[in-house]
Formats: sequence, structure tokens, C-alpha cells
Amino acid sequence: MPRRIVVIGGGAAGMSAASAARRADSTAEVTVWEQGPFPSYGVCGLPYYLGGVISDPESLIAYPAAEFRERRRIDLRLDSVITSVDLEAHLVVDSDGAEWGYDALVYAAGAQPIVPSIPGVDDPRVMTVRRLEDAIELRARLGTARRGVIVGAGYVGLEMAEALHACGLDVTVMDRLSRVMTTVDPDVAAIIQTETERHCTLLLDAELRALHSHDSHIDVEYDGGTIPTDVVVLAVGVSPSTGLVSDLAALPNGALIVDEQMRTSAEDVYAAGDCIAVHHRVLGEPAFVPLGPAANKTGRVAGTVAGGGEATFAGVVGTAVVKVFDLTVAHTGVTLEEARARGWRAEATQVTAKSRAKYYPGAEPIIVRLVHKPDGRVIGAQLVGRDGVAQRINVVAAALQVGMTVDDIAELDLAYAPPYSPVYDPLIQAAQAAVLARGRG
Amino acid sequence: MPRRIVVIGGGAAGMSAASAARRADSTAEVTVWEQGPFPSYGVCGLPYYLGGVISDPESLIAYPAAEFRERRRIDLRLDSVITSVDLEAHLVVDSDGAEWGYDALVYAAGAQPIVPSIPGVDDPRVMTVRRLEDAIELRARLGTARRGVIVGAGYVGLEMAEALHACGLDVTVMDRLSRVMTTVDPDVAAIIQTETERHCTLLLDAELRALHSHDSHIDVEYDGGTIPTDVVVLAVGVSPSTGLVSDLAALPNGALIVDEQMRTSAEDVYAAGDCIAVHHRVLGEPAFVPLGPAANKTGRVAGTVAGGGEATFAGVVGTAVVKVFDLTVAHTGVTLEEARARGWRAEATQVTAKSRAKYYPGAEPIIVRLVHKPDGRVIGAQLVGRDGVAQRINVVAAALQVGMTVDDIAELDLAYAPPYSPVYDPLIQAAQAAVLARGRG
Repeated sequence: MPRRIVVIGGGAAGMSAASAARRADSTAEVTVWEQGPFPSYGVCGLPYYLGGVISDPESLIAYPAAEFRERRRIDLRLDSVITSVDLEAHLVVDSDGAEWGYDALVYAAGAQPIVPSIPGVDDPRVMTVRRLEDAIELRARLGTARRGVIVGAGYVGLEMAEALHACGLDVTVMDRLSRVMTTVDPDVAAIIQTETERHCTLLLDAELRALHSHDSHIDVEYDGGTIPTDVVVLAVGVSPSTGLVSDLAALPNGALIVDEQMRTSAEDVYAAGDCIAVHHRVLGEPAFVPLGPAANKTGRVAGTVAGGGEATFAGVVGTAVVKVFDLTVAHTGVTLEEARARGWRAEATQVTAKSRAKYYPGAEPIIVRLVHKPDGRVIGAQLVGRDGVAQRINVVAAALQVGMTVDDIAELDLAYAPPYSPVYDPLIQAAQAAVLARGRG
Repeated sequence: MPRRIVVIGGGAAGMSAASAARRADSTAEVTVWEQGPFPSYGVCGLPYYLGGVISDPESLIAYPAAEFRERRRIDLRLDSVITSVDLEAHLVVDSDGAEWGYDALVYAAGAQPIVPSIPGVDDPRVMTVRRLEDAIELRARLGTARRGVIVGAGYVGLEMAEALHACGLDVTVMDRLSRVMTTVDPDVAAIIQTETERHCTLLLDAELRALHSHDSHIDVEYDGGTIPTDVVVLAVGVSPSTGLVSDLAALPNGALIVDEQMRTSAEDVYAAGDCIAVHHRVLGEPAFVPLGPAANKTGRVAGTVAGGGEATFAGVVGTAVVKVFDLTVAHTGVTLEEARARGWRAEATQVTAKSRAKYYPGAEPIIVRLVHKPDGRVIGAQLVGRDGVAQRINVVAAALQVGMTVDDIAELDLAYAPPYSPVYDPLIQAAQAAVLARGRG
């Protein structure tokens, strides 16, 4: 009798898991339950569809349903909801009350946007953008809107600000904190803030109180006043969608704890994607870092192991990159703030270098900030600039993977040609400065 | 009495050495002898001045002479030639016959273009481009030239081809080998060849025989025919300028052997830059790889140690990048050809991936070729494409530094956002393919 592998969630993690399970076990029955109408699309691409960079929303879909159903022989059920999971009995129950037994369950239900508990959030002009359906609806609204308010100045909020600005809206971004993007240190956040303010109104230390609906507009009430707007986008974070499996071991926010083979605390239950905590190699503990690459990788591992194969996930070091208008912001590891909040002794060295040879057209300043321990070990980096930032962070990501010191980075043999780099790459310059600072320190 | 530190050569290595010596010993007499009229300019920028990307040749000069003379208190002697070195007596002799004693000598005379021994190379319209003076002279000639022949299809030849093409010349590139760029494997060279042929005539397996001067033009005679041209650029490689110190231990081509502190085989004599062999960490032996970053770094180390300080150079892994028309070509480590020529068991895995999310504008194919040993250890990589190539090679450069395997690279936590990368970075895709190939192999 073929093994029954059930996957809850048809996003990147779920479809990776289902595909990997099929590769690992060619005879298993692999079933995916996805509550929405689309399988496996690029959530990270939604801001670019909204902003008009991409015209066809379906281009965000990695593979059509037929690819999964026919080529990979996966029973992909769209618009199909699982309402409960019985971990003891090894079965799931669908919205019609039917029971489906499993030999292995991969839980990949993702994460959902946090909606603040304030009056007025149920107005249809108040939106979150996590699903392709949301984006299609919001895109339609943007045709007539003149003004938009984004709540939340994290990376998603800033991507949404760029998208709405690209649609011609007057955009206000508000955040209850005194800064944007807490994934970078304040010095770097200040640069992002300046860039945001070139295009939007930025309200910091602004606590959202209520949303007041009118026929013609919405009034956004915060502790410093009221802003009229046509559309509100909530971007205050996401929480893992783990309500169906609340008995499983999890972080306080609900993110499921898994081992390196994506096993949860229940027998035959695996989890992957934005609903899990991943092993953070720099922190040395599980962390909730819901990003696309880990969703794909953990999905693949969960599906492989659920299908009887061998695979492990080594964890993350916390690498991410985001486009904020004309800036690229990239970071990996921990910030100085985070390190010190954990009681670690750490320092940061920050330099401004050129992205290319100073005489070559297109050379732009790059700010490189390295966070390191007293013994020189690098524990994080932040890069920001208009040119050559996105891939440079990956060198530090590789360095974090193996515990390199600032001396090690200063010794790297990085590529040089005038169109691409100064003769001392910005990363080398930062590392050299850190080596010198340690020598003096 | 202050120590006398003499530096021969005022290029990147020599001026780095002089500056580092000054930092290490604030009272030393630091003297630099440079035979040309300009200190420390970016040789790698010459093609971009020639091609008109950069209009002012002086912008290639890293620092004006006054910076070295006044701020750094270096006795910088331009247009000044040392004609002999007496290693026993610790002195150098200038072109006027005057003797200058040294306590420490840093030899940084660089490398000179190889000029083939064929008839006709002394025509002033036949040039090499290694010095800023050469480039200024050639640039003047390009004003009236309609046709150009480049001899040599290595990276310098291809850069020169792009430069002459940018000036509106009909360009022919010829090479005696059957391919361009031997620093990459044939599969990758074929892509570069196609790009070159979009803009130039490429003659391979073409052995230069003679140059015949006429008032109106030059006839370039090779084993397959004759090409009339207005200007000829020789780009068949460089050789270390080590004639003054031929008693020092060296590779067969004359490149000086140094230790990790840049000491040569003679007492109190250090060497740096394009005249030395650097430690190649992948090959595990000294290699002649005359590139800018190592010139700067070895100059700094030589000067620091000559000045009584402590510094070491860890070597290179063979990283380089070059722009060939609209392509970027980057490589690090060794090619499969080189590995096998050394009798190493090695394989290559090559994938074509997208530089960005497939739906994001500007996504271009990137070819990633990983060269690895049977145990999975990566020993080289080649990347080629129109977008996102130059910095990606640096991740592999870091991987080579620590001996990562293809599995390690597949596990790297690389940055993802649609404008910059697919969710599985091209490097990860290549590493995953290599892991799978090993599993099957």
C-alpha cells in the first residue's frame, strides 16, 4: 500500500515538500491542501506587481497547477481547507468534515499578517498584503486612490511604500518605533529613513489608535493626529499560522520547533516554511525568520525526509536584502543592538567606500558596517547603497557560516575590475578598518 | 640615524609599500624611484580611458604626488631610473651613476608587456598598453584610426577590443590559440567568444608572422593571410620586470619568490606587486598572477615589514573579473583543465540560472560552473552573464579560502529579494546540482 503523505499549505514550502516527497518516494500518495486559489507563488514579488513593475500577477506563480498534478503526480487541492489535525490518530479533517489519514504530515501553513486590535480595521480599504488575492484586490483599488497610509516601517512596509508611490499615491509611512527597520542598527536605519523621506511622509513614534471610515476616505487616527487616506496597508509583521497544531512544541509566538530534519515534536509530523523557527547559526538557537530561501529549503528537507529520504537543513545566519526606493539594504547575522541586548561584548566598524573604481561611471557610496566580537569574530554585517550591495552581503554570509574573523575577511581574494569594485573591495576596506580598530582597542 | 628605505617602482605596489613603511617607521627616510612621470595610477582603468568611458587620464591617479611628498613625507622621484642593484653592498645606482645605500629595499618594478620577436614591431603605430603614457599616446592615435588589430585574446586583449570598438574602430582580435581566455574552461570561453564576435572579427588559431609598415597603414601578416590596419595593440601577456635583481630566487619566468612577509632570497630585500609570484592557496604553490588587489596588499605588507612592523600576506585564490562588452566574466580557483593538467581528479558542474527572480525586469541568464574534487571540495568557479556576476564570484572566493565543499555552498544562507536574485541563488543552484551529480556519480 502506498504511503500517504499529506501536506498542509501549498506555498513555496508546501510545494517544495510535496515535490521532494515525490522524488523520494515515487509511489506515495502525495496530497496538498491549499486554502487559496494559487499554488506556490512568489510572495516576495507582490510589491512589484502592486507597483506595476510586473504587469501579470500570474507571472509570480512558480509553476502552474498542471505541473504539480501531471508531471509530479501530486494531488494538489486548491481552495481546500483543513479544519483540524488529530496528531494521535494521524489524520486531518477537511471543511466538509471528511477525515484523511496520513503516514507522514508536512505542516507548511505559512504565516499570516498581524492585524492590530483597533477600531475600524475591518474596512475593506484596510488591507494586508500576504496573498496574491490580496494584491490583486489592492491593485484594483490603487487605480482610483490618491493617498495611502502604510502602517509599519519594517522591510515589508517600505516595499509597500515604494509600490504605492510608484502608483502615484501620496504615501505616508507610520511606525510606533522611533526608527525604520530594526533589522539594522540605528546609524544604518537613518540612511534608509532619509531615502524614504525623499519619496514619502514618514511618521515615527506614531502609535496607531483607530481607523475611521467615511464614504470618501478613511481617517487614520494616531497619537499625534489624524491623516485622511484612501487606502491603508497594514505591515506590522506576521505570525506563524500554527493554530491547527497548537500542541506541538513552539516558540512563544507559535513558530514550530523542528530538528535539522524538520521533525516536529509529534511523531510523523514535519514542518517547513514560514510557520517554523529555523536554527540561527549566529544566535545558536531557533529563531523566527520567515524568508523565502529557508521556506524553499526547509520544504525540500521536510518532504525528502517525509518521503523516506535523507536531508538536513543547516540553518540560517539571518541574511536578507531589500530594495527601498533607490537604495539596496542588506544584512546578515546580528546587529550591534541585538548582540548587546544579549549581553555579548561586541563592536561595530563602519566605513563608506565606493561601489566601483572611483573614476568609473556609476560608482556610488556603499556603507559597510561589520559587527564583531572582541576576538575579531564577525557576527553580523549591514550594507546599504545604490550599487553593488545585494551580492556583497553574501560574502559575509559565507564568512558567518564558518566563523571568520575580521582578519580573515581582510585577507579574502575578492574580484577586482574598475566597472565592479575599487581595488580594495568595500568589504576589505571595512575589515581592514576593523583590524586597525582592534589593534588600537 | 634614520633607516633608509628605498622603493624601486612607484606603481600601486611601490606606493603602497612606501606609505606602509612611513606608517611603520615615522622617522625613516623613504625614497621611491619611479621611471615614469606618474605615481600610483590604476593600470586596470587604462582600457576605460582609451574607450572614452573616462575622459581625464589623470583621474586614474590614485593620489597626487603632493599627497605622497607632503602628507606622507615620501621622497618620490618621478622620471628617475635605477640602473643597478648591489645586493651585497646594500645599494642602488641611478642613471647618473650615483649610489644610494639602503637598510631595506622594496623591489616593486612591476611587469612589462611581452613584445613578440617578429619584424615590424617597432612601428610607432604598434603599441602595448601598460603605462598611462602609452594610453595617452594610443588615445591620440585613435582619433584618426578606422581599423585596429589586437594581438592576444586574453582578458587584456578583450578589454582593449572593447575600448577600440567604443572609439568606432573596426576591430580584429587574433590569437594563436583556438580559444579566448584560458583562465576559464572551453565551455565558458565559447560564450565569451560569441559576445566578442558580436562586435569584432575574431581570428583564432592565427599565428602572427610579421607587421609590414606602409605610410597609410600596417599590414598584419599571420599564418592565414594579411589584414590591413591603422593601429596594432599587442596584448600577449606580461613578464615580471626583474632584470635588475636576477640573482634573487624566482620562478622560471623571473617572478620573484617571496615569503608571506614579502622577503626575497636576499637580506633586507622585499618585493611586491606584479614582479612577484604570490602564494596560490588552491594550487598550494607560488604562481604568477599579476593583479591589482594583490599588488596593493603585497606592497602594504612589504612596506610594513621593511619599516619594522608586522604583517603577512595570506596569498590569493586566483579571483578575477573582467568586462567583455556586455558580459561580465569572473573566475576564481582553478579551471577543470588546469586541475586535470595537474593530474587532479576533478569534475565540473555547470548550470544556467537567472540573475534575478524570473519575473523581475533585468533578469538575465548567469552561467555558473563549479569545479570540485571527488570529495566535494570546491577548487574553482567560473561565472559569466550580463547581470549580477561580479560580486557573486566573491562568495566562491571566500569558500575557497576555507576549503568549502559543494554541500557547504548549497547550505549558504544567501540574500534573496526579487530585484537581486532568484529564491535559490544561482550559486546555490549550481551547488545543489553538484551535490546531486556526486550522489549519482
